[in-house]
Amino acid sequence: MKQATMEIICIGNELLIGKTLNTNAQWIAKRATTLGATVKRITVVADELKEISTIIKEVLGRKPNFIITTGGLGPTFDDKTLEGIAKALNLKLKVNEEALKMVKEKYEAYVREGRIGKVELTPSRVKMAKLPEKAEPLPNPVGTAPGVKLNIQGTILIALPGVPKEMEAIFEESVVPLLKEQSGGVTFFETSIYVDGVMESSIAPLINQTMSNNPYVYIKSHPRGEERKPHVEIHLSTTAKDSETAKKRLEKVIIELSELIQKAGGKIKFQKPKNKL
Amino acid sequence: MKQATMEIICIGNELLIGKTLNTNAQWIAKRATTLGATVKRITVVADELKEISTIIKEVLGRKPNFIITTGGLGPTFDDKTLEGIAKALNLKLKVNEEALKMVKEKYEAYVREGRIGKVELTPSRVKMAKLPEKAEPLPNPVGTAPGVKLNIQGTILIALPGVPKEMEAIFEESVVPLLKEQSGGVTFFETSIYVDGVMESSIAPLINQTMSNNPYVYIKSHPRGEERKPHVEIHLSTTAKDSETAKKRLEKVIIELSELIQKAGGKIKFQKPKNKL
Repeated sequence: MKQATMEIICIGNELLIGKTLNTNAQWIAKRATTLGATVKRITVVADELKEISTIIKEVLGRKPNFIITTGGLGPTFDDKTLEGIAKALNLKLKVNEEALKMVKEKYEAYVREGRIGKVELTPSRVKMAKLPEKAEPLPNPVGTAPGVKLNIQGTILIALPGVPKEMEAIFEESVVPLLKEQSGGVTFFETSIYVDGVMESSIAPLINQTMSNNPYVYIKSHPRGEERKPHVEIHLSTTAKDSETAKKRLEKVIIELSELIQKAGGKIKFQKPKNKL
Repeated sequence: MKQATMEIICIGNELLIGKTLNTNAQWIAKRATTLGATVKRITVVADELKEISTIIKEVLGRKPNFIITTGGLGPTFDDKTLEGIAKALNLKLKVNEEALKMVKEKYEAYVREGRIGKVELTPSRVKMAKLPEKAEPLPNPVGTAPGVKLNIQGTILIALPGVPKEMEAIFEESVVPLLKEQSGGVTFFETSIYVDGVMESSIAPLINQTMSNNPYVYIKSHPRGEERKPHVEIHLSTTAKDSETAKKRLEKVIIELSELIQKAGGKIKFQKPKNKL
C-alpha cells in the first residue's frame, strides 16, 4: 500500500498580511489525510504572477501525486492563479468552451434569480473561463468560477477557488473520488489522551520507548497547560486498511503508554477536558 | 524607504494532517505586516530532519531579511527544528551555556511552585539548550524552551516555539524591536468597505481603474455574500511613514471607488455588517 502524496498551495495576499486565517489549508489537509493521502507541504504565496509560477514549478519538481491550489480564480485583476500555472508549464491560456458554458449558465441563473439584469459576458467574467491548454474545468456547484484540473506527468494539479464553501464543494465533488481511487481504501485514524500532573519533558522518553515498540503508530505530545498546571495532549495516529487494524494498534499503544505515564505519576484522561483547549 | 522582507516556516505534522489550525502563521504575518515588513511566503513542513533542513536552505537562498520558524523546539524526539537548522548550515549542535542556564532556572522555578519534585536535567530537558553554534538564545517569558536567533549573511533567522502564548511572548520581547529598527517607522494601514447589490465581477473593472490612478493603495475584493445576495468586502491597504499620509491616500481611494460603485448600482457600507463574516 502506497499513500498518495499531496502539496497544498494557497494563493492570496490576505493570508500573507494576516488578514485571513488559513482555514482552507486546514480543511484540505484534514480531508486529504482522512482519505489516506500524506500532505507533505503547505505553501502560501502572494497574488503575483512570478510568485505563483515559481511555486508551481518548485512543487512539480518534487513530484507529488496531487497539487491542490486555492485562491486566485475569480474575476479581478489579482486573480492570477491560472495565468501563473500556464506560465510555469509554458502553456497558453485560452477560453475553454466548456468552462465558458459553465460561467454563462451561472450568470443566466443569476438573471433568473433577479441578482443581475442581463447576461453580459464582460472581460472580467470571461476571464474565469480562460484556462491553460489541456486543462479540464471542474463544475462549481455553489459559485461562479469553475475549478481546474491538469495532468502533468503523473501529478494531478487541481486549482480551487479561495471562497471556502466553493472550494469545499468542488473538492467533495471532483477531488474526493480521485483520492479514494488512489488510496485503495487506506484511511487515517487518530485519537488523543490527556495527561495531568506530568510535564511534557518527563513524558518525552516514555513516548520514545512506546514508539520504538510500535512503529505503525505516530505519537505526538502537545502541551496545553496553564502556567502552573502541566496538562499535555497526546495525539496518536495510524494509517490502515481497516478500522479493526487501526483500533488494535491504537489500543495497544494507549495501554502501554498509559502504564508508563501512570508509573511516572501522571493521571490519564480519555476525554477532551471541557473549556480546556 | 525599503520594507524588510520575511518568510515564515511552520514546522509540525499536526498542521499537515489538519489537526491544528495555523493561527501562529496568521499572528506573525499580521504583527510583522503592521510593523512594516512584507511577508513573502509561509511554508508548513513536517517534523522531519530532511524536510526542515531542506526548507531552511531554500528560504535562505531567497535572502529575506527575516526568517521566523515556529514549532519543534520542545523536549520530545520529534522536536527537530534546531537539528534541522544546524544541518542546513553545516553547524554543530551543542549545549549553549546561556540557554542551559535559562532552562535550568525554569525548572528551579517549577520546583518552587511545586510542579515537579526536584530539578533533574534529563536528556529531554538538556535537548532544549542544544543550539547550533553561534546561535543566541532568546528568553522565553512564559515557557521552558528558549527561542533561538542566528545571523546568516544578512538574514536574521529566529526559531520560536509552537505553543502560541510562548511564541507570541518571545516575538514581542525579542523580534518586535528588530522589526521596528529595520522598518524605520514605516507602518501598514488598512480598512474595508462593504458593497451590497453588485457582483464581484462587476466591481472588478472599477477596482482596476481606481488602482491605476492610485499606485500606493492596494485594493482587493473578497466575496462574502450568501447564495442569492451579492455582498463584497473591499479591502484597502497602504504602507506609509505616518498615519496622516496613509489616511489621505485611503480616503481619496474610498471616495473615487465609491462613486464608481454607486454609479454601477451598488450600495456602500463603511461598517462590517454584524454576523455577516
